[in-house]
Amino acid sequence: MTEGQPRLRAAASGLLAQRGIRVEENELVITTGSQQAIDLTARSILNEGDLVAVERPTYVAALQAFDLNSPRYVSIPVDQEGGQVQKLLEFASSGTLPKLVYLVPNFANPSGACLSLERRVWLARFAVQHGVFVLEDDPYGELRLHGSPLPSIYEIARSTPGAEKWCAYLTTLSKTMSPGLRIGALAGPEQFIDKITLLKQAADLHTSSFNQEVAARYLEGDRLQGRLDLIRREYRERQNCLIDEITSAFGSAMSLLTPEGGMFLWGRFRDGTDTRELLKHAIAAGVIYVPGDCFYVEQPDRSAIRLNFSAAPPEVIRLGVARLKYAHERYLSAFNGSGSSERRLELLGQRVLARVQRST
Amino acid sequence: MTEGQPRLRAAASGLLAQRGIRVEENELVITTGSQQAIDLTARSILNEGDLVAVERPTYVAALQAFDLNSPRYVSIPVDQEGGQVQKLLEFASSGTLPKLVYLVPNFANPSGACLSLERRVWLARFAVQHGVFVLEDDPYGELRLHGSPLPSIYEIARSTPGAEKWCAYLTTLSKTMSPGLRIGALAGPEQFIDKITLLKQAADLHTSSFNQEVAARYLEGDRLQGRLDLIRREYRERQNCLIDEITSAFGSAMSLLTPEGGMFLWGRFRDGTDTRELLKHAIAAGVIYVPGDCFYVEQPDRSAIRLNFSAAPPEVIRLGVARLKYAHERYLSAFNGSGSSERRLELLGQRVLARVQRST
Repeated sequence: MTEGQPRLRAAASGLLAQRGIRVEENELVITTGSQQAIDLTARSILNEGDLVAVERPTYVAALQAFDLNSPRYVSIPVDQEGGQVQKLLEFASSGTLPKLVYLVPNFANPSGACLSLERRVWLARFAVQHGVFVLEDDPYGELRLHGSPLPSIYEIARSTPGAEKWCAYLTTLSKTMSPGLRIGALAGPEQFIDKITLLKQAADLHTSSFNQEVAARYLEGDRLQGRLDLIRREYRERQNCLIDEITSAFGSAMSLLTPEGGMFLWGRFRDGTDTRELLKHAIAAGVIYVPGDCFYVEQPDRSAIRLNFSAAPPEVIRLGVARLKYAHERYLSAFNGSGSSERRLELLGQRVLARVQRST
Repeated sequence: MTEGQPRLRAAASGLLAQRGIRVEENELVITTGSQQAIDLTARSILNEGDLVAVERPTYVAALQAFDLNSPRYVSIPVDQEGGQVQKLLEFASSGTLPKLVYLVPNFANPSGACLSLERRVWLARFAVQHGVFVLEDDPYGELRLHGSPLPSIYEIARSTPGAEKWCAYLTTLSKTMSPGLRIGALAGPEQFIDKITLLKQAADLHTSSFNQEVAARYLEGDRLQGRLDLIRREYRERQNCLIDEITSAFGSAMSLLTPEGGMFLWGRFRDGTDTRELLKHAIAAGVIYVPGDCFYVEQPDRSAIRLNFSAAPPEVIRLGVARLKYAHERYLSAFNGSGSSERRLELLGQRVLARVQRST
């Protein structure tokens, strides 16, 4: 059946209950990874020209799904406490109230930031007061490496009168059990879930029943907790290693948001390094990262950089940072004088052009 | 990667080659079942109000995917030789040339009809002459139970100058290996496949890598041929059984299209039986079918019925037809006099209304 096999829906309800989220059977749909849930939510809510609020920076693949409905965007700046959601009040008063707010409250991709409790409560209230739908995407919540878990916006909305109609909660097994299974779970108000189910039928009939069975048995066997303990221990070590290495390699030249969990460090070169230009040197040196400018819907920060710490063990992280440091030196020297004069001119030209583009 | 794992794409190319279809690597994308390919094709080609040509009757779930793009429809009547595609010429001259033609040339769902070679050649030529895109959906081609395979429209288009840009070919492992895996394969011109891949990234990032690996190994091991031999032998017996039983139960009261393969028999009650009304009696008698009226985009035939022969062995088919016969008798007697007079009046009212609706 399109909404998911009863066995997996029961197991997924159990998983959500462990996070403090109670859902009825008709408030949950199994999706082909969380990406499908984002796509279907966009298709169910957005018409051409509708406003979507996303974090600044935000998750790129969500933008890809939203883009297909030709919306307009407003963006919510992110600081150490997550998205500055109170900005939504400014949007409301300036006539740019979004129809949909999309955010990753726990250890966002790419910022790593965690939305504070105060902001979660505020957002749930704002949603019902202004009739704005909130899609809370939580792939990384179980990857908390420091501090205590916070309640989901969805859960808070459940105890905020009227707000439960305006919030949906999305999670996935991709960051904990296996990305290859493509199993997501979307919880929300019944009418919304009904609409999503109808759209899902047109999109892929149903999620692989084979994978649903595998996932259900895995969750029932309670093997996830043991795996999470292992992942968290390993990721904590890797995160510490990456922070130490980056700090000692770049010092004050790079500012870092230090996250309490997740998979990413979000940095910014204070020296104005263009991370897309730096990437060419990095690839030549044998290391890659995601340049920060792709995570913005407007005015991209070309000095931002997303560094992943989950994919490699400490010794490889150390090697990677050494290579990044070397690449950065090559980048600077190409710009500052030790490269050929033609190359210097080319780089100077690119930087000037980039600056001009940024300021227009 | 979004377009599919190299190993499965190679195995899928091999499968297509066995059907006489040669594709380059950049002309193939793995999809999450064929339903996703239909949805993505619709999203890539259709804008609101665009015309889509479908068979009459046509596959319901394809309509669900098309509907999301708010198109208009024209329909191509189906006879024993498949869709009467030459009707497209009338559409062209009356200003209703479709942008997309969707059809299931081999043992269509629900009609079971197989498009003749002449019509395939005609359609490939028409596509390039009029700039109409053809999506050839072939889930059942391997389920040929009688006669010899015909070349695909896609293959014919390859040897029709210019036509290769206007045809795509879709198949799936759902009707042969396993429906639960959700593995489809879509072949088409490179630009089209590029666009589909981009849309797929937004729709679900990629198809389950686990399932792709399972499917690739299965296809490499050449286990499919043995399974197909088994399926064909079994389905042939079931099809013969269903035809015999229906013919002896209903005689000339039901006309049948007798297909050369696939999973369905398509019938029509000549006595004007309303198959949606009959369904209530059928369910009460312990048998179900799909009433034919849902397979139409306009002027549904309420006396049509889709009967499945693939899902049950002969003894169950015999029981099912006996129950259907009983249900039909109950339906007729409720209408003709042995039911209560209130019930007779209700049924009479429904039939009159239905006839009026059909004629307007």
